Amino acid sequence: MRYASRKEDFLPRSFYNIKADLPAPPKPPLHPGTKEPLKPEDLEAIFPKSFIRQEGVTDREVPIPEPVLEAYSVFRPTPLIEATALRKALDTPARIFYKYEGVGPVGSHKTNTAIMQAYLAAQDGVKTLATETGAGQWGSALAYAGSRFGIETRIFMVRSSFRQKPGRRVIMEMFGGTVLESPSPTTEAGRKFYDQDHEHPGSLGIAISEAVEVTLKTPGVKYALGSVLDSVLMHQTVIGLEAEKQMEEMGVVPDTIIGCVGGGSNFAGLAFPFIRHNLRGERKARFIAVEPEACPSLTRGALRYDFGDSVGMTPLLYMYTLGMDFVPPPLHAGGLRYHGMAPLVSHLAAMGIVEPRAVDEKTVFDRAVLFMKTEGILPAPESSHAISVAVDEALAAKKEGRERTILFNLSGHGFLDISAYARNGHGGKA
Amino acid sequence: MRYASRKEDFLPRSFYNIKADLPAPPKPPLHPGTKEPLKPEDLEAIFPKSFIRQEGVTDREVPIPEPVLEAYSVFRPTPLIEATALRKALDTPARIFYKYEGVGPVGSHKTNTAIMQAYLAAQDGVKTLATETGAGQWGSALAYAGSRFGIETRIFMVRSSFRQKPGRRVIMEMFGGTVLESPSPTTEAGRKFYDQDHEHPGSLGIAISEAVEVTLKTPGVKYALGSVLDSVLMHQTVIGLEAEKQMEEMGVVPDTIIGCVGGGSNFAGLAFPFIRHNLRGERKARFIAVEPEACPSLTRGALRYDFGDSVGMTPLLYMYTLGMDFVPPPLHAGGLRYHGMAPLVSHLAAMGIVEPRAVDEKTVFDRAVLFMKTEGILPAPESSHAISVAVDEALAAKKEGRERTILFNLSGHGFLDISAYARNGHGGKA
Repeated sequence: MRYASRKEDFLPRSFYNIKADLPAPPKPPLHPGTKEPLKPEDLEAIFPKSFIRQEGVTDREVPIPEPVLEAYSVFRPTPLIEATALRKALDTPARIFYKYEGVGPVGSHKTNTAIMQAYLAAQDGVKTLATETGAGQWGSALAYAGSRFGIETRIFMVRSSFRQKPGRRVIMEMFGGTVLESPSPTTEAGRKFYDQDHEHPGSLGIAISEAVEVTLKTPGVKYALGSVLDSVLMHQTVIGLEAEKQMEEMGVVPDTIIGCVGGGSNFAGLAFPFIRHNLRGERKARFIAVEPEACPSLTRGALRYDFGDSVGMTPLLYMYTLGMDFVPPPLHAGGLRYHGMAPLVSHLAAMGIVEPRAVDEKTVFDRAVLFMKTEGILPAPESSHAISVAVDEALAAKKEGRERTILFNLSGHGFLDISAYARNGHGGKA
Repeated sequence: MRYASRKEDFLPRSFYNIKADLPAPPKPPLHPGTKEPLKPEDLEAIFPKSFIRQEGVTDREVPIPEPVLEAYSVFRPTPLIEATALRKALDTPARIFYKYEGVGPVGSHKTNTAIMQAYLAAQDGVKTLATETGAGQWGSALAYAGSRFGIETRIFMVRSSFRQKPGRRVIMEMFGGTVLESPSPTTEAGRKFYDQDHEHPGSLGIAISEAVEVTLKTPGVKYALGSVLDSVLMHQTVIGLEAEKQMEEMGVVPDTIIGCVGGGSNFAGLAFPFIRHNLRGERKARFIAVEPEACPSLTRGALRYDFGDSVGMTPLLYMYTLGMDFVPPPLHAGGLRYHGMAPLVSHLAAMGIVEPRAVDEKTVFDRAVLFMKTEGILPAPESSHAISVAVDEALAAKKEGRERTILFNLSGHGFLDISAYARNGHGGKA
């Protein structure tokens, strides 16, 4: 393995806002009632005002506030690693690099936006942030960020993951978060599904509806979202901005950038700072967004307006979607179980800049174990989707006898997902 | 946080053998039957011959074989981090540094000796290594190392940990290890306890007896031990040798070096390369070995010959011991549940160079959560004993208004120990 350094000055002072570089803007979100383009004040019932301002910002560089930089400096810059052992095992001419976001306090990239959102909420005097979580990565990130900035957190966790991943619930509670199994009987939206089936596996869409309902009905509560929205993706660009400097230090420029996509934020966070060079005509890198075959919004969904949740409470977003009613099977990569895709990622896919790719779960787990055995890091099931395509691309390079420089986002570790490995036939029963 | 770099040339090419620098040698191990000093050939029934040669080596520098260096390079050099956020929270003049061994494939320092032992066994044509494991850190390290060098592993896991930490079992099995709950009904030694109580919580001592018995009775099987022995401690010196170079890079020299002790190997691995400067009269650093109050071999045990296991099958070791019959309560820091202490660590404690310190479990968990909240890394319960004393020392420095440079070993992460946090009142019930 070769490690880029983690110098303090590799941590960027501003987020990169890709909207400033797009030739045409994506279609705007619509008000769920009027179907007219959403006005910032329409969001005030749900989001903190400072967050709404971030969502609308058009500057190319958006400064990162000092207390957020200080919070980032606990674990950022994250490592940038050359996968020399994986390369050797694949016997490929391609060089493979990965940005490792699993070193953060809760083990994934989600902390990047959680810290920013908790900071903004605290600036606005918000007492509590409500949210949903799939595998628990986002919920634990928000609970951690909340504990740093004095914000309480109320987290609806998708039942299938709640049952599979008790460790993440403990972490949320360790940081003072309140965790509810979703669909829950505590909200109207939840009861709609809970009353049909107390063991309903849930989905991110349903959990979003529950968190939004609590927000609308409870004074002092605002809502936080872990992916999909423009500013959430923008907060994640610290990943790609750091990676670019670290790869410069190593003297390489990636030609293939890969990330897994559920809502789209970890992919965007790594890719957008590199896509800017494509948009400016400086480079012609490829960008591959990897999703599970079982939840194929980019590869099988339609590009149209759809609700962000499963009940129809959120604004309408123009995005690739499988439909708000789509309930994905209880995948181990709980963080990828979402019916839609971030409007910005959808827009770039429609432009042909982002290549969608769907992969099957068995291949993903086999590749994850290969990665563990060679690189010595147990990857999250979500991130393993990116590994799987990085391996495909490295093998394609071998077949073609071409040098390539592949960079992927290892968005989190899998130590809290061990039962998923066991259920996929690796290491007996959990 | 400030990170030292992880340059390839910080990885040492030789282990440091402290025996070459001791003014007087420790008392030798005795044959369990004759009570005469052990001859190398007495160990041949149990250990691979190459390992026995390592155990007897007297050279100061013992070369690390190339294939072992290659295996180390997957995760080594490990990070050396300055705990700037913890320091700020404690408002102390002391600077605090930690060597983080949790980045290895199974999340602890144990891989350092596991890789060397699997390599030596493979050189000798050994087919299977049998061993015991407490919390599962050692067992998973040996399973990983075995999978790299084509060695099968058979692992007796202490029942109380087996039940609390199913994740580690899955990892062992992921690497092809066979895991048995100990005391088991599959050995005579195990049945002695199992027949009394099928739910006997077990201990490291009992599990060692089981693994040794299997070794003695099964052709092609040799035994591997994760701590206690001189050469095992020597293999861990890569930790301290790297740390010294990394601290040099940062321009600091530690005056207080801290590690937790169960068998003693992670403490020794960090401390011995620094102790050599004390032995040579070059420095006067302090070395603190931290154990749980519930298993206080160094602070409350007697320095005498005792068996390494609970049945009396191993050689007699001259060490601080609570007695071979001592069964510690089912502590969360399963890796520290051992009745004895490495002879070399015992020797240095008797010489007054190593200061023993016992800490209570509640304080340890509170400090672990403080560390998580400030430094963003969830520590293993074992390593948290070192954190706890690092905090004590930093607070003492504050009281005295003295600058200090503290270095401790963060020997592993706690993502597979979450249930222990929950049971200590952090984050609800697991």
